[in-house]
Amino acid sequence: MEKIKVGVLGATGAVGQRFVQLLEGHPWFEITALCASERSAGKRYADACRWNLRGDMPASVRDMVLLPCEPGPDCQIVFSALPSETAGEIEEEFAAAGYIVCSNARNHRYDPDVPLLIPEVNPEHLGLIEVQKRARGWHGFITTNPNCSTTHLVSALHPLHVRFGVKKVFVVTMQAVSGAGYPGVSSMDILDNVIPYIGGEEEKIEHKEPHKLLGAFDGSGVRPADLLISAHCNRVATRNGHLEAVSVEFVEKPTLDQLLEAWRDYTPLAQQLRLPSAPQPAIIYDERPDRPQPRLDRMAGSIPGMATVIGRLRPDPLLHYKFMVLGHNTIRGAAGGSLLNAELLVAQGYLGRTHAFLAESVQMA
Amino acid sequence: MEKIKVGVLGATGAVGQRFVQLLEGHPWFEITALCASERSAGKRYADACRWNLRGDMPASVRDMVLLPCEPGPDCQIVFSALPSETAGEIEEEFAAAGYIVCSNARNHRYDPDVPLLIPEVNPEHLGLIEVQKRARGWHGFITTNPNCSTTHLVSALHPLHVRFGVKKVFVVTMQAVSGAGYPGVSSMDILDNVIPYIGGEEEKIEHKEPHKLLGAFDGSGVRPADLLISAHCNRVATRNGHLEAVSVEFVEKPTLDQLLEAWRDYTPLAQQLRLPSAPQPAIIYDERPDRPQPRLDRMAGSIPGMATVIGRLRPDPLLHYKFMVLGHNTIRGAAGGSLLNAELLVAQGYLGRTHAFLAESVQMA
Amino acid sequence: MEKIKVGVLGATGAVGQRFVQLLEGHPWFEITALCASERSAGKRYADACRWNLRGDMPASVRDMVLLPCEPGPDCQIVFSALPSETAGEIEEEFAAAGYIVCSNARNHRYDPDVPLLIPEVNPEHLGLIEVQKRARGWHGFITTNPNCSTTHLVSALHPLHVRFGVKKVFVVTMQAVSGAGYPGVSSMDILDNVIPYIGGEEEKIEHKEPHKLLGAFDGSGVRPADLLISAHCNRVATRNGHLEAVSVEFVEKPTLDQLLEAWRDYTPLAQQLRLPSAPQPAIIYDERPDRPQPRLDRMAGSIPGMATVIGRLRPDPLLHYKFMVLGHNTIRGAAGGSLLNAELLVAQGYLGRTHAFLAESVQMA
Amino acid sequence: MEKIKVGVLGATGAVGQRFVQLLEGHPWFEITALCASERSAGKRYADACRWNLRGDMPASVRDMVLLPCEPGPDCQIVFSALPSETAGEIEEEFAAAGYIVCSNARNHRYDPDVPLLIPEVNPEHLGLIEVQKRARGWHGFITTNPNCSTTHLVSALHPLHVRFGVKKVFVVTMQAVSGAGYPGVSSMDILDNVIPYIGGEEEKIEHKEPHKLLGAFDGSGVRPADLLISAHCNRVATRNGHLEAVSVEFVEKPTLDQLLEAWRDYTPLAQQLRLPSAPQPAIIYDERPDRPQPRLDRMAGSIPGMATVIGRLRPDPLLHYKFMVLGHNTIRGAAGGSLLNAELLVAQGYLGRTHAFLAESVQMA
Repeated sequence: MEKIKVGVLGATGAVGQRFVQLLEGHPWFEITALCASERSAGKRYADACRWNLRGDMPASVRDMVLLPCEPGPDCQIVFSALPSETAGEIEEEFAAAGYIVCSNARNHRYDPDVPLLIPEVNPEHLGLIEVQKRARGWHGFITTNPNCSTTHLVSALHPLHVRFGVKKVFVVTMQAVSGAGYPGVSSMDILDNVIPYIGGEEEKIEHKEPHKLLGAFDGSGVRPADLLISAHCNRVATRNGHLEAVSVEFVEKPTLDQLLEAWRDYTPLAQQLRLPSAPQPAIIYDERPDRPQPRLDRMAGSIPGMATVIGRLRPDPLLHYKFMVLGHNTIRGAAGGSLLNAELLVAQGYLGRTHAFLAESVQMA
Repeated sequence: MEKIKVGVLGATGAVGQRFVQLLEGHPWFEITALCASERSAGKRYADACRWNLRGDMPASVRDMVLLPCEPGPDCQIVFSALPSETAGEIEEEFAAAGYIVCSNARNHRYDPDVPLLIPEVNPEHLGLIEVQKRARGWHGFITTNPNCSTTHLVSALHPLHVRFGVKKVFVVTMQAVSGAGYPGVSSMDILDNVIPYIGGEEEKIEHKEPHKLLGAFDGSGVRPADLLISAHCNRVATRNGHLEAVSVEFVEKPTLDQLLEAWRDYTPLAQQLRLPSAPQPAIIYDERPDRPQPRLDRMAGSIPGMATVIGRLRPDPLLHYKFMVLGHNTIRGAAGGSLLNAELLVAQGYLGRTHAFLAESVQMA
Repeated sequence: MEKIKVGVLGATGAVGQRFVQLLEGHPWFEITALCASERSAGKRYADACRWNLRGDMPASVRDMVLLPCEPGPDCQIVFSALPSETAGEIEEEFAAAGYIVCSNARNHRYDPDVPLLIPEVNPEHLGLIEVQKRARGWHGFITTNPNCSTTHLVSALHPLHVRFGVKKVFVVTMQAVSGAGYPGVSSMDILDNVIPYIGGEEEKIEHKEPHKLLGAFDGSGVRPADLLISAHCNRVATRNGHLEAVSVEFVEKPTLDQLLEAWRDYTPLAQQLRLPSAPQPAIIYDERPDRPQPRLDRMAGSIPGMATVIGRLRPDPLLHYKFMVLGHNTIRGAAGGSLLNAELLVAQGYLGRTHAFLAESVQMA
Repeated sequence: MEKIKVGVLGATGAVGQRFVQLLEGHPWFEITALCASERSAGKRYADACRWNLRGDMPASVRDMVLLPCEPGPDCQIVFSALPSETAGEIEEEFAAAGYIVCSNARNHRYDPDVPLLIPEVNPEHLGLIEVQKRARGWHGFITTNPNCSTTHLVSALHPLHVRFGVKKVFVVTMQAVSGAGYPGVSSMDILDNVIPYIGGEEEKIEHKEPHKLLGAFDGSGVRPADLLISAHCNRVATRNGHLEAVSVEFVEKPTLDQLLEAWRDYTPLAQQLRLPSAPQPAIIYDERPDRPQPRLDRMAGSIPGMATVIGRLRPDPLLHYKFMVLGHNTIRGAAGGSLLNAELLVAQGYLGRTHAFLAESVQMA
């Protein structure tokens, strides 16, 4: 069967490059369009893009000519790695023109009719798509994935939330420099240092994203989850991998073994469907006393960079329990999150029955 | 007036070197004895010690011949930078022989009759000295300073505790590699990494040191303060300076301005006495949105490395308020803490009336 | 066909772990013995070894019981990751007992009858094996691989040397911390720093290893190559990958294009034989103006960590040309070098005709 | 006596801040004008400048209102920290208007009538000032200081050159990130990495700056020194301090002791004049086998950051000798270099006889 044609908006930036890298050799998708700013449009990708990831730029994209970020390219899905200055309008134009937009930008994350999606956590929020298309009169639609630090926090909490009800969360993040893009954090600022501030990050975690992600879809909208979160966000001198110290209180206090069991038994829809980018398992619990660590564990699991790694579960003197969470910020926390969202859309039939069959056949194998 | 003769136990190690550095040119103290392990005893300090601090080894100690760690040296105070494997017994021998032992080791910190001391926080705990001398039949005595991460946490909490009563504390530390001594943390472990575990550190903060430090001396012992603390301790790739994300709940919720005022107006005994190593002020509140930072702020204040720097005070969605605390771990958090303790002992007359006068004259000036 | 049984001496250390990692799933070899110090012998590998590499310890070795480092284990080849304090004698005992010893230790590198080997560079030095066995009356024998910084320098020079004759070399190394083993370089020493000294390293490069490697085997010994080398060796804060700034003068000055051609056309015996760990190509020339870089390029090529990466070839105002060389120090520069040596021995029939056929069949495919 | 009024052009940038820091409390100079881009002009310095150095912004400049970079301010000397995009013309305008311009920018360094100056090395090049004023019809004039990596290389070579004649130099630099300004090098590029390329740097060292600095002034111009230099320039993950591995060949080969003596006895004019920012001594030779190191030694000497530190002198197998050189790149290598130039101008009477007396009185003291 033919692969599904996809495009990347903002293909030359740090997140755009990750999309290109992750899509190379993808079993369902093939890149047919790379779009960039007007300044770069018309150039070869290899000429316009300073490739910044380990390994070489995939040969298949080197000679592709960059298109402007306007509807027109021959593809069904566009992955948006656009900066927030331009993402808002451009994504709307593509959705209006019938494209499926899987966005990593923050612009539409909090729109009531746009799914903020982690396939393992809230696939039922895809119901918002119909609401969105109807409300906006669009042929296509927009889905988004959460911020990198939220993604792994909520991934770790979700299996606990469904069983025991998460009420209160303390989280202190130690975030990698790649989370700020490229060039992002100056070496002058971070060598031999920690910066105890990341603009807007604490607000996203405390008030916006986890509540929507863990909220309930009622057919017309998402009722935010009722939980209290306190977040301190810090930038540390790691390249990749956000590490988070988390303390949690539940509606009903489980035993420590019940928590471990909730993570161990966690096999949500994305894993059941065997989506190509869904790690098996979704959550890894590492029993070693000094893990997870960013350098050693950010690529752990069956799909490097897509799993959430947890460790050091122990009682908390204030709330019920505490533990460490680690996840890759530019793979699952950015481009990989959007990609998995697109795979879920395929498997759920949002690209038509034929492609859903494709997904099912994978699942059967 | 003649200076007070002091010795350093464990003078060749990382903390021992800091003692030597901080005592160089001290207005009250002069080093007359450097003691080290049997392996080094008999050697010149310059030959036995691989000097590890910025700047050169002070000329005045280069040719001093290292003594064994046994009572005998001609001095009144000994500063102990001994490792915990040997500190326990050796410190007792010196105290029994009439020396005043100002120790940075953890061995006697939790003994009910040994002061665990931060001069700004609990000078009244010096009352334990009489209890200790009586109980043990010693001519001398032992005082200790807390662990590096506890020191700055409690320094920040103390002015709040006396006004509003601290009830609950959530703290996540990001600690510098020098906290593990030399060679300490392998570069293989910490480059591009964070280690979410420091052996024994969380226990000290959660259950032992803050409670004793903030406890009440009742004439015969210290009644631990009644507060709940949850601590996550992490090692990050900074050289010096422990940064801590702190959330606090009080007995009675103050306003944000009242907290700022409590820190601003803080002028405890050590500062009133103008002890030579007491920073003026003891606490610095930095209003910039991304401060304090280890590299930029660990040496802030009038006595570099001795102040506690606070920033980012803001409401906390779970407890009352949250903020960041930073302090130098090998200066105030280790050798400098012991040194300030010794200065307090002098000023309070524990070395005799004459020396107390010396201190008073400083205070008057 | 059955795999060849191999053992690892010093299996729990940093280099030992690399051997275990590289041997996992090897097409020709299988680990049947892991040997360690007396302290560890008798323990499970998983219990005695603090696994330090990215990814998990291979499941196949977790339960293997560590043996002492004495002849006895059921295997034909032993890879030696022993420290130089003990490597000398132990390796001799194994060779005397009939084992083939492929050593990464420096002890026997300079013995006149022991091959110091890079398969691409001097496979004809295997002729020393007969000399060695005869002289020492051994059933087995020892081969060694060079020091990590020498390996990549000589790999880069070899294709030039055979065509144009290398006369003078100026080299300044910037070496990764993993070159010092674990725990090796203290984080206290290397954060925000460069250490312009690595004990013994300059002597190895200036006087010992390149001369033997590029020397001529005359049937009974190796006549050292006649070239002058000046080396400055530095330790920098990279985890892996030694970077070297090199200037060269030749017997006859080639054109710049001739140098590029010499590297491009380089297909030595190891690559012709398609040894499983021989990278294709052996040398990668990167044309980008700011490459090679340790983090981006140390794993470049078909067998990650085994190729030598070169860049920035340009005229030199003093000698003829200058360029940068990069190579992975703990893969090709240590365990991987020994492993490739063993593969060459198999292919050349040193383990018997049958195994050589095995190698030939690979080559044919 | 009144201090000399000085201004800083480009006062808000990284080098501009260093000028402000170094001028705070200067015995001869006081800042009366801070100039910046049009965007910042009119703002308070404290509002327009994100202070990036350790320690606080000096109180004396916080409230100064930034002026545009045009002639007019009430001062005699202007220090230029302008970027090369604008430095060329603006500096000319100031010089034409009668100001003495001490510039750190590269624009006029290679003009035949502009001194490229290190006070210890070529004070006689001040003779160019008259040539310059005459040729250009200016009332003021421009002097420049060399690039940060050249400065310390030439400082180390100068005492050797005057005695033994330097003929050939190999140098490989390992340069700190601050050399690229702020934000400069992205943390994404330099963590766990070395970048073997700094645009334009090798050309400056190989062909431009050392030759002019060590050249002879013949009354009308500078005849470049006749020496061959090969330079490889690398960026490493240190914050401050450029480390350089140097090999040298002389016209006549001296003994190793003669080299040490040349450095030890080095007391050039700037030191004889006791210029306030001239370190005593100018060159420090450190005998320890693993020194100098950037973190430990970049602030060595009587004026922190102004001395050149040398170590590891030993024979070189290719040229005569080799050694390591270290110097602070943003102090002596930038703002501090310009400042010392200005002090030399004062002492030599370029600001009038009165001020020269001021300088002489210092010298007498």
